[in-house]
Amino acid sequence: MKDNSVISISVIKRLPRYYRFLGELMKSGTLRISSGELSIRMGLTASQVRQDFNCFGGFGQQGYGYNVQQLREEIGAILGLNDRLELIMVGAGNLGRAIALHMDFDSVGFRLAAIFDNDKALTQLTIRGLKVMDSALLAGYCKENRPAAAVLCIPPDKAPEVVDDLISYGIRGFWNFSHYDIHTKYPDVCVENVHLSDSLMTLSYQMKHN
Amino acid sequence: MKDNSVISISVIKRLPRYYRFLGELMKSGTLRISSGELSIRMGLTASQVRQDFNCFGGFGQQGYGYNVQQLREEIGAILGLNDRLELIMVGAGNLGRAIALHMDFDSVGFRLAAIFDNDKALTQLTIRGLKVMDSALLAGYCKENRPAAAVLCIPPDKAPEVVDDLISYGIRGFWNFSHYDIHTKYPDVCVENVHLSDSLMTLSYQMKHN
Repeated sequence: MKDNSVISISVIKRLPRYYRFLGELMKSGTLRISSGELSIRMGLTASQVRQDFNCFGGFGQQGYGYNVQQLREEIGAILGLNDRLELIMVGAGNLGRAIALHMDFDSVGFRLAAIFDNDKALTQLTIRGLKVMDSALLAGYCKENRPAAAVLCIPPDKAPEVVDDLISYGIRGFWNFSHYDIHTKYPDVCVENVHLSDSLMTLSYQMKHN
Repeated sequence: MKDNSVISISVIKRLPRYYRFLGELMKSGTLRISSGELSIRMGLTASQVRQDFNCFGGFGQQGYGYNVQQLREEIGAILGLNDRLELIMVGAGNLGRAIALHMDFDSVGFRLAAIFDNDKALTQLTIRGLKVMDSALLAGYCKENRPAAAVLCIPPDKAPEVVDDLISYGIRGFWNFSHYDIHTKYPDVCVENVHLSDSLMTLSYQMKHN
């Protein structure tokens, strides 16, 4: 496997797609697939698929095709999907609750362990077996349980302070729905931003100019 | 403005970010900004910012800096944010309902006009003033109202049939939360995919290898 610092973000972003497509192939009973077939499914060239896989030392025998289940397991291991890192959610509004209910965290490397909100009306709720906790308990919880990552579903104006706090409590990764640019202040923290309105604006652009 | 087919997707994907940052600058009372300052805020080089803007004919006088409000309006117009295209939502489960409640569609180029689901329990609901309609009414609704785009919040196994139907009803853009690859069958349709589990897997990778 190459030094991770030299693997480009576009290759890394393709790994979940490979993983997802291989899961679909398994469901449909496909045992082996060639890089050619996989590339068509992915909208890439066969040589791009082989190059991607070579970043991680290559998988399986190319002439004979890849073993679908084995390839999926190897990509899953590279993605860390078996690690079940402890994840907390901060913000249990409409979006946070939907994310908590909708996502299969266990299958993508995380275990949702606690949900926090500072709205007393929301701390009455139980979501997916987790009672929403008052944000005042966040520091104590993190000290005791050492969660690795946080889902941020709070308004952008609250985000700077909450991020400062969470980082001081040892959080080192953010799944960020909050439209706050964590990397400006903390360039070394792991961040995945989900900018829903940016995505919809991009669709708007496409529809205007297509 | 360059022919749109030659503007790279990475430039297009940056436009919503510029738009968002300029909105924050306006809120904080900033009237003018240089490409240098804007580039720092965006994590780009000043020359990259100027190159991006040159794709659209350039904006304002560079030496003097950009007028924040005017630049934001011009980028908004390029993104089509004033167009208020009619959008329907298909799928009013947890995620669909949260998206419907959470998003400020009007500010990003769309008008959410109708919500559909085939679950009779959900067609009792009213979300943001819209009564959830039975999916059986979808064809008639589209014939009469000619919506331009659809938000897909349905399970992936239902998606192929629903997408076929929607395209036959004249839908030409999808905001797709359904993990179904619309472009494989319809390469010319406008699609913005939101792959939430891919995003979380990418975070998992970062945390494993950082």
